[in-house]
Amino acid sequence: MSTPDLDEFSTTTAVLQQMSATPDPRLKEIADAAVRHLHAFVREVRLTPAEWLTGIGFLTQVGQACSAIRQEFILLSDVLGVSAVVNALHQENARERGTQSSLLGPFYREGAPELSCGECLVRHPAAPLIVVYGRVTGQEGEPVRNALIQVWQTDENGLYDLQVGDPAVMDMRANFRTDDQGRYHFTTVRPLGYSIPLDGPVGRLVRNQRRHGFRPAHIHFLIGGDGYQELVTALYFGDDAHIDSDTVFGVSGSLVVRAVDDPHAPMPGLKAVHYDFRLARSADETMGRVGADPSKVGGVVR
Amino acid sequence: MSTPDLDEFSTTTAVLQQMSATPDPRLKEIADAAVRHLHAFVREVRLTPAEWLTGIGFLTQVGQACSAIRQEFILLSDVLGVSAVVNALHQENARERGTQSSLLGPFYREGAPELSCGECLVRHPAAPLIVVYGRVTGQEGEPVRNALIQVWQTDENGLYDLQVGDPAVMDMRANFRTDDQGRYHFTTVRPLGYSIPLDGPVGRLVRNQRRHGFRPAHIHFLIGGDGYQELVTALYFGDDAHIDSDTVFGVSGSLVVRAVDDPHAPMPGLKAVHYDFRLARSADETMGRVGADPSKVGGVVR
Repeated sequence: MSTPDLDEFSTTTAVLQQMSATPDPRLKEIADAAVRHLHAFVREVRLTPAEWLTGIGFLTQVGQACSAIRQEFILLSDVLGVSAVVNALHQENARERGTQSSLLGPFYREGAPELSCGECLVRHPAAPLIVVYGRVTGQEGEPVRNALIQVWQTDENGLYDLQVGDPAVMDMRANFRTDDQGRYHFTTVRPLGYSIPLDGPVGRLVRNQRRHGFRPAHIHFLIGGDGYQELVTALYFGDDAHIDSDTVFGVSGSLVVRAVDDPHAPMPGLKAVHYDFRLARSADETMGRVGADPSKVGGVVR
Repeated sequence: MSTPDLDEFSTTTAVLQQMSATPDPRLKEIADAAVRHLHAFVREVRLTPAEWLTGIGFLTQVGQACSAIRQEFILLSDVLGVSAVVNALHQENARERGTQSSLLGPFYREGAPELSCGECLVRHPAAPLIVVYGRVTGQEGEPVRNALIQVWQTDENGLYDLQVGDPAVMDMRANFRTDDQGRYHFTTVRPLGYSIPLDGPVGRLVRNQRRHGFRPAHIHFLIGGDGYQELVTALYFGDDAHIDSDTVFGVSGSLVVRAVDDPHAPMPGLKAVHYDFRLARSADETMGRVGADPSKVGGVVR
């Protein structure tokens, strides 16, 4: 009899052998690594059958919590830092080093209204206005003219437009263009940080880990210019109580800002956030955005 | 500014730090290991944002394919060999070495009819009968009297009772008791191997890996005796074409049998499978069964 009794090591070999005829080399590479790391994880913690079944039940719940307006698996990837690692690797793959990138998140929407310099992206501001300004440049400081700057954020209560009012109306989001010197500025209200959704299986995990579940206040940016690599990033407010404990690990030190009195700001009298973005030249690769509109992720059938 | 720019290594540290207050030590141990291995996997293959999104979509599809009668995440665990590793570790945890265990699978049902020695577990056999016989003993060969032997299998076409006919009627399954010498025997038809369900996301993966998707013909056993650890196992037919390439890695060499002419068999004239089971003494642990009735796994909401 040639078949051996499978143990926790020879099983790994048998799986890799059975997958060895995979014609797509990248699928083979990813599946092989997934199997090796999954098995190593199970061996390291000596997962029991009861724990395995709990894990199966958890993943099933995560899948079934996904809908056209909710992507619980992206949330799981976010709170475990997997999205942040993918994002960091993607940034390293760029040929040049531009502004640090951050997560796109699930609230990006295409087709926001295009506003002129200085206009306010909040329809009915219920908090003091601030001004956000700066330049978009390339690696050598050359201005990126007519760059498209897509901005979106929560209101002063920590809610995106999709979470309040009519989902057909876009608010707290707008698109701007840079001028001939690559300059931009717009007015807005200071966004508030917010909790990730805690009413699903991922929220239960986060609570069981005694994590607060909050993201610090931030403004999202998606910036594109001809010949440059698209930049997905966000600016985080340094005086937020959760600035050092973002539940989804999107904060990088170089993206932390403050709204301050600033005599150089284009709209005196308002607190100002000053940030200059630097774009990398475009590389020969598909653009990457770590995050997605839930309705556009394959697999959501409801 | 104390917040560093997160890279693919410092992100791991940040996640572990944020999970460090988890009060349940076992949850902390498992989540820490899961994060380290997940991040190592992503770094090793340098997963791109587009591949990450494909993975999110795949896992979402797997979750949404689960229902009260189908557990696609268990199937995924099975075809990646994760279930087999959990099973192997569970067997090692036993204080004594009994018969090799195997996967419970999704077709086990409680409350099958109890039959007498020699009776046939198939209601309307459409193929030649075979006899299966042997003894159930402990570590020193002592007979296990009145052991409960639960048996289930496919028919000669590779289908379980739940896949043909009235689901309320149990067939191709029965419970037997050992006699005073620990002996058992029953008659049945030779089961046929079968393909795992290939119409879902896991099936698509298996096909993309050019795997045949078959399990070799087998008979499931769940054996319990007072003072002994429950044994979940199966006997596999050595002349099946897929005996060395079980899609779910349940086959161990010591579980491979053949139906042969056997003058010692209790029912002469029938091809016979002879197998003696050995039970380990019961340990102070929850019994483990790697497999489950889909309707009993947490998370299935439909």
